[in-house]
Amino acid sequence: MTSPWSPREHCGLFGVYGLPHAAQAIYRGLFALQHRGQEGAGIAVSNGTTIRFYKELGLVSEVFSPKKLQELPGSAGIGHVRYSTTGSNRLENVQPIVVECVDGLWAVAHNGNLTNAALLRRQYQESGAIFQTGTDSEVLVHLLADPLFRLRPRRIARALNELAGAYAFLLLTPFSIMAARDPFGFRPLSIGRLGEAWIVASETCALAQIGADRIRDLEPGELITVNDRGLSSERFADPPVNGTTCCVFELVYFARPDSRIFGCNVHAVRVAYGARLAREHPVAADLVIPIPDSGNSAALGYSRESGIPLDCGFIRNHYIGRTFIMPQQEDRTEGVDLKLSVLADTVRGKRLVVVDDSIVRGTTARRRVSRLREAGAREVHVRVASPPCRFPCFYGVDFPTREELIAGANEVEDIRAFIGADSLGYLSLNGLFEPVGGGGFCAACFTGDYPAPTGGPMAKDQLEFRWEGAAS
Amino acid sequence: MTSPWSPREHCGLFGVYGLPHAAQAIYRGLFALQHRGQEGAGIAVSNGTTIRFYKELGLVSEVFSPKKLQELPGSAGIGHVRYSTTGSNRLENVQPIVVECVDGLWAVAHNGNLTNAALLRRQYQESGAIFQTGTDSEVLVHLLADPLFRLRPRRIARALNELAGAYAFLLLTPFSIMAARDPFGFRPLSIGRLGEAWIVASETCALAQIGADRIRDLEPGELITVNDRGLSSERFADPPVNGTTCCVFELVYFARPDSRIFGCNVHAVRVAYGARLAREHPVAADLVIPIPDSGNSAALGYSRESGIPLDCGFIRNHYIGRTFIMPQQEDRTEGVDLKLSVLADTVRGKRLVVVDDSIVRGTTARRRVSRLREAGAREVHVRVASPPCRFPCFYGVDFPTREELIAGANEVEDIRAFIGADSLGYLSLNGLFEPVGGGGFCAACFTGDYPAPTGGPMAKDQLEFRWEGAAS
Amino acid sequence: MTSPWSPREHCGLFGVYGLPHAAQAIYRGLFALQHRGQEGAGIAVSNGTTIRFYKELGLVSEVFSPKKLQELPGSAGIGHVRYSTTGSNRLENVQPIVVECVDGLWAVAHNGNLTNAALLRRQYQESGAIFQTGTDSEVLVHLLADPLFRLRPRRIARALNELAGAYAFLLLTPFSIMAARDPFGFRPLSIGRLGEAWIVASETCALAQIGADRIRDLEPGELITVNDRGLSSERFADPPVNGTTCCVFELVYFARPDSRIFGCNVHAVRVAYGARLAREHPVAADLVIPIPDSGNSAALGYSRESGIPLDCGFIRNHYIGRTFIMPQQEDRTEGVDLKLSVLADTVRGKRLVVVDDSIVRGTTARRRVSRLREAGAREVHVRVASPPCRFPCFYGVDFPTREELIAGANEVEDIRAFIGADSLGYLSLNGLFEPVGGGGFCAACFTGDYPAPTGGPMAKDQLEFRWEGAAS
Amino acid sequence: MTSPWSPREHCGLFGVYGLPHAAQAIYRGLFALQHRGQEGAGIAVSNGTTIRFYKELGLVSEVFSPKKLQELPGSAGIGHVRYSTTGSNRLENVQPIVVECVDGLWAVAHNGNLTNAALLRRQYQESGAIFQTGTDSEVLVHLLADPLFRLRPRRIARALNELAGAYAFLLLTPFSIMAARDPFGFRPLSIGRLGEAWIVASETCALAQIGADRIRDLEPGELITVNDRGLSSERFADPPVNGTTCCVFELVYFARPDSRIFGCNVHAVRVAYGARLAREHPVAADLVIPIPDSGNSAALGYSRESGIPLDCGFIRNHYIGRTFIMPQQEDRTEGVDLKLSVLADTVRGKRLVVVDDSIVRGTTARRRVSRLREAGAREVHVRVASPPCRFPCFYGVDFPTREELIAGANEVEDIRAFIGADSLGYLSLNGLFEPVGGGGFCAACFTGDYPAPTGGPMAKDQLEFRWEGAAS
Repeated sequence: MTSPWSPREHCGLFGVYGLPHAAQAIYRGLFALQHRGQEGAGIAVSNGTTIRFYKELGLVSEVFSPKKLQELPGSAGIGHVRYSTTGSNRLENVQPIVVECVDGLWAVAHNGNLTNAALLRRQYQESGAIFQTGTDSEVLVHLLADPLFRLRPRRIARALNELAGAYAFLLLTPFSIMAARDPFGFRPLSIGRLGEAWIVASETCALAQIGADRIRDLEPGELITVNDRGLSSERFADPPVNGTTCCVFELVYFARPDSRIFGCNVHAVRVAYGARLAREHPVAADLVIPIPDSGNSAALGYSRESGIPLDCGFIRNHYIGRTFIMPQQEDRTEGVDLKLSVLADTVRGKRLVVVDDSIVRGTTARRRVSRLREAGAREVHVRVASPPCRFPCFYGVDFPTREELIAGANEVEDIRAFIGADSLGYLSLNGLFEPVGGGGFCAACFTGDYPAPTGGPMAKDQLEFRWEGAAS
Repeated sequence: MTSPWSPREHCGLFGVYGLPHAAQAIYRGLFALQHRGQEGAGIAVSNGTTIRFYKELGLVSEVFSPKKLQELPGSAGIGHVRYSTTGSNRLENVQPIVVECVDGLWAVAHNGNLTNAALLRRQYQESGAIFQTGTDSEVLVHLLADPLFRLRPRRIARALNELAGAYAFLLLTPFSIMAARDPFGFRPLSIGRLGEAWIVASETCALAQIGADRIRDLEPGELITVNDRGLSSERFADPPVNGTTCCVFELVYFARPDSRIFGCNVHAVRVAYGARLAREHPVAADLVIPIPDSGNSAALGYSRESGIPLDCGFIRNHYIGRTFIMPQQEDRTEGVDLKLSVLADTVRGKRLVVVDDSIVRGTTARRRVSRLREAGAREVHVRVASPPCRFPCFYGVDFPTREELIAGANEVEDIRAFIGADSLGYLSLNGLFEPVGGGGFCAACFTGDYPAPTGGPMAKDQLEFRWEGAAS
Repeated sequence: MTSPWSPREHCGLFGVYGLPHAAQAIYRGLFALQHRGQEGAGIAVSNGTTIRFYKELGLVSEVFSPKKLQELPGSAGIGHVRYSTTGSNRLENVQPIVVECVDGLWAVAHNGNLTNAALLRRQYQESGAIFQTGTDSEVLVHLLADPLFRLRPRRIARALNELAGAYAFLLLTPFSIMAARDPFGFRPLSIGRLGEAWIVASETCALAQIGADRIRDLEPGELITVNDRGLSSERFADPPVNGTTCCVFELVYFARPDSRIFGCNVHAVRVAYGARLAREHPVAADLVIPIPDSGNSAALGYSRESGIPLDCGFIRNHYIGRTFIMPQQEDRTEGVDLKLSVLADTVRGKRLVVVDDSIVRGTTARRRVSRLREAGAREVHVRVASPPCRFPCFYGVDFPTREELIAGANEVEDIRAFIGADSLGYLSLNGLFEPVGGGGFCAACFTGDYPAPTGGPMAKDQLEFRWEGAAS
Repeated sequence: MTSPWSPREHCGLFGVYGLPHAAQAIYRGLFALQHRGQEGAGIAVSNGTTIRFYKELGLVSEVFSPKKLQELPGSAGIGHVRYSTTGSNRLENVQPIVVECVDGLWAVAHNGNLTNAALLRRQYQESGAIFQTGTDSEVLVHLLADPLFRLRPRRIARALNELAGAYAFLLLTPFSIMAARDPFGFRPLSIGRLGEAWIVASETCALAQIGADRIRDLEPGELITVNDRGLSSERFADPPVNGTTCCVFELVYFARPDSRIFGCNVHAVRVAYGARLAREHPVAADLVIPIPDSGNSAALGYSRESGIPLDCGFIRNHYIGRTFIMPQQEDRTEGVDLKLSVLADTVRGKRLVVVDDSIVRGTTARRRVSRLREAGAREVHVRVASPPCRFPCFYGVDFPTREELIAGANEVEDIRAFIGADSLGYLSLNGLFEPVGGGGFCAACFTGDYPAPTGGPMAKDQLEFRWEGAAS
């Protein structure tokens, strides 16, 4: 994958202003966002005077004990869950990043991928700046502290204008929290309220977790500031010429079904994808079988539309993490075996429609088809509730390289043969867009049509090497 | 609850004979049995000469590292996962129990509850025996080592005859493994093969996890021995006068849906319970909603039989353990909030049939009904795929006391009012038995009809007190 | 070394009765006894009703946190520090051993070596007893619980009479503590008072640590019981025909210089040994150099008697443990390099008298002589404040086998050549005995004259093998 | 204490170039320097291409396992041990600090105190720089990366000229190590060789630990660079007008006796101080008693000069760290009790001369005098082998505030009364200087005569507050 130099991250953000024991709420919010990142977690809080923080590698529930949360007093704060690619799961890369600049202490948390981070990093370094993490997010704090912006009005907005790529970010100062979404709106970020307190979260499921009400999404190109005077908002950038482009893969895969992001009910969208899939790729079969949990919603839609009964063909072992975001290939392979077990008595002798959200490398799908056949399934028809995944993402989703994406170089029939299915049907691009209103989404991973600069391979190898090398 | 003195345990067993690196297979098997016990795990192996073991509090994946498994060489071994009630989750109670007696080193693992353990413990103590754990299982090794049995033919069988209550157990010597089920057959235990190796497991899902084939269940009252000469079997007790009584609650709740136990396909039984429930308690509604994952199979059956569409109303957070078996009430309460989130957009304005496997205290059901109403559900009809749970279990399931069981002292209408449902329907006793052949099961938790002595309250308070007191 | 089957232990004991927060005092007492065992530590306390305990591998300061101590309420308790030989440093061997027998909960801690433990273990096993540790101490609790003794008057005293070998032990019941010393008096045990509370400790330095006053030593063959009615004492055995034989090696090496044991001031005895050594082995030299800290006292005596100035030739690194009791040979070797550094500027060009307490294998002494020469010492005369160590100990000191003892098969001149000294002088046997009153000591490690049966090699190999094999 | 904003540090440095497995040697070197800092340790190594590092709170032996060392391949590297004042013992403050600037990866380790760090930090922050630690050392890397210096010849030397205060520092790049001492020469730094490899260490005891030979000290104001072309040296600053001023407190207290620093044999200097003290403050007494180990050398000198016999009055418990550098007052107080025990039998009825290196707060000395009297000492005469410690240090020694220094506001007679001694004698200033050649030392803590600017209280409160506040 020709990717920008930094580890790509798909993370979760949660911010609070005006809630006693903010750390407790952030803890619960991050817990609801755990699916967005399981490699590390951190919380920074302000008590109105100073900032305290704690962060560590591991799950939210592993990183924070009641004692740790008690040591984080204050009514404002931000939190972050992170996942990373191989080699970068080091403590110094866990966020929030807490720094001291001339304005005092700041904490920053970021979800997305800054496509000009390597360039900016190099430029700042040429001016004498030093970096202490291997994340692209660190460039943010250099921008924010840059006198070029700092000494002028609307400094944060001006600084944000320098960034390219995808970002949702939270900034905590001793006196305020700020939040921004990039002008394209790649990554989700929602505003909620709980009593008088303001909440910002990557997904609304985290608002619900603490009993907060969703108010609205942050607009692409919007910067909000919450402090003692309440919430204020400003636009820091014009909309892109071709309109905003929210990440459709959030709807397809990443977001939790009980979230509402980009104005869509995630579960309902996936049910609609499943129904559409049933119309696009009908087949005579006995049972519709979801791959749990990623295919659950779409399988429901497929079953309803087709009239083929839904059944449970796989049991998920709950004592293992999410396959997709494990750091190493070998773990991923082994993880699959341990994660799903076939209900042999259910599938034996049956013609099955197996529904999942996407196929990335194809090896997992192949293994599952194989398991179903071993268990006696008569026919296995695979239906995928998104188009073939063919291109890398430069905006924050950690796909493998194009060579590793099975649809990167193969036709559907080849993929079918590889995974050993009797038939294989993908959702069409129209099927992808129509249920969500027809447009306004980035689908570059399916189409290769990148709405924003990708940053290219510049400086990547050399720079990444340094920090990967630094892994101990 | 008037219970025998020892902590009640609902555990998982896995034994192997004749497989290189037995510890690896046991690790995978225990991982598949993790739902049967999450408080502690242990593995003991024999290399043909001596026994090595490791055990610790925690999940299988936490207790065992690759390095730990490597330090357990040998081709035979047994493993155990354990859950416990408050106060007894101490390392010394984790199994297998490894002891040295005159015959050398032995390791023992046990699932069930010995209703005469307190009596036997006292008797052995009066003879000078010392005990080093707070488990009822320890009495087993005293029986096995007793010269009364040891110096006669069929010593193990004779010793087993002294035990009352429920047990499936595994014994490892340097040269063999043995397995036995009590004459009533309360707890499941299956025999499998993988090539030339013999496997014994609490549930067949663990056989499948390592690719082994299920051969048959151990018979109630059967003792098998596997050594270099193969597998030999003997009956150590006559069948009970009224026939065997397998634990129906294993089918209702405990066993994994992809397991086959007591000759039944667990998932299919639960689907049948759901269908039966639809006939016994029909209602006009828009959606059938399972409580994930315990209500999944029955909800499928209810939906199919009633024609009411199935939908997903709750999302389960995968980063938390199983509510039912957490050790403390407060954790249980909080755990529920963190575990399931409502899909508000799905349930809003809808008439719902909510299906679960059972109701124990009622507080969890009440909270969930409340959440659905807060999210805008118009009607909430609760359907339970088992009869009211009214009596304690003396055979190894850790129910709360009768006072805490909501159906212990309340009628269905009272329970409905307590949980706030528009209607409430339980499966009938006939509905429970017919799908599994009409008989041969213990349903004492529903009927109070205990097939075997319960041990009574004897000596319990004093003895239990000692070891609970010993908790540090 | 033909040794009894069990790991030999040289441990420290500390017991308290009648002191609020006994665990705190025991913690401090064990800390003062840490030199007697660094592999594991444990505390058991009684609150008058039940016994709680905690034990773990590691130093006292590592094993116990303030929180752990708080979880051990009660005004009576016992503690233990332990060191072990290779292979037996397993958690289950750490003491106190806490068991339940017919009399309720007991905790036992032991210092010494029971030479008939293997025999008794086998006998009890033949009666059906089971053992769960690899220590010889476990046999104690079987004896104590044996109905043969339990149902008769003076049961504890009767049971103790069955034991052979060396022991000081403490027993905690919910209502009392008991302490006993073997009839030979091999190991030290002192009684102290702090206000109304009674204290028992292996060495008086532990009494001083908590501000308690030394009352007297326990007599050999004496059993004391402390409970609500105060302290009572009984003799459980007649004195040995040839009189008591306290371990002289405690004075030579093990005990802390600020302790008073067997009626002797340890530091003063060692100073006297050093002075005697100066008379027995005078030499013309510029400086007397102690090996810190084991040679400090004797070097002082040598310098005073000879008039040769004392100086500091070695600096001890304080961030490493005591060489002698590390579990593995390789650690011991490496430990020496890291532990002592030569003051080259001090020793350069000088004729040195290097004083230490003993030479065991000779490899350490050889290395130190070599270091001094490398640093420019002109002459190195080694003086040892005890006779040549030639025989194994069966009473609780973990010497290597006779083959490994350099004085086991070599004459003094050979040893001198091996360690590379210009001269070598050992204290004479008369020099060993006269400063301590001329008799009443076991010096079997120097003379081979064993005052009590040694147990011989019986059953050792088979039994030890089992539990060493069990190490994981 | 009016101190600069940063936590004062008294640390140890060790650098290697040209030695296979540099991390192993650094580990051993840091182990020998452990007395200079016990709060945290870190090692950074280069394999010629990139830099890897590991650092953690704790002792060297706790932080590094064999596995951790193996993960640090390369033949060049630097290491650091650190101690800190309350509130700053956070992981992010542990060194080496590893950063990426335009020149690539750098690792920096520092011993001392930069008195203009707060000013420089503020200036750099005003230019947009961000800081991620609470140490004064971080300003170093900003200076080094500053284009103002970077784009000119002799950049490192130019950058160093900006620093004020005390520093010895090591810099690791992928291709070289550099080392520098401030122009005043406050802190020690020595150069050694081991075969072809170059070593740099805070004290020569660390050179000896790995078998390296001392070549010479770094000169004050000297910068050396070691790379593939060997060692090159340059002067980056003129000597101070009044000459260099090495820290005499290193000789008095900090350095290990077996080190040679500032051209002096540390042990010999302390022996000379003790002898001088005997002449300045003679007294009729029975025994000279050192406070171990800080008073050992001086007590030897006092005894030799006075003819009063040396004896051992205190036993040090080896299982506890160095009192002076524990982070909290309460720990310090309690630590003292646990650390030293009195040999009552030795001191009873005796007139004692108790010798220590210094008195800081006086509370420890008071407690020890009290213990000796409780043990029966007839007279206690305290002799201190340095002058009264009256002023804070701004150059890297963590003294308490002047209010806390007992000699800050009290006369000797008052101090004597406070500590309860029969007499009290301090070394004179002449006595301090003459044995070390009469001059060239900073003795500001005794005289208040600060040779270099102290930085004053500027900005300290505000800045320190921020990061202390950040402690979690």
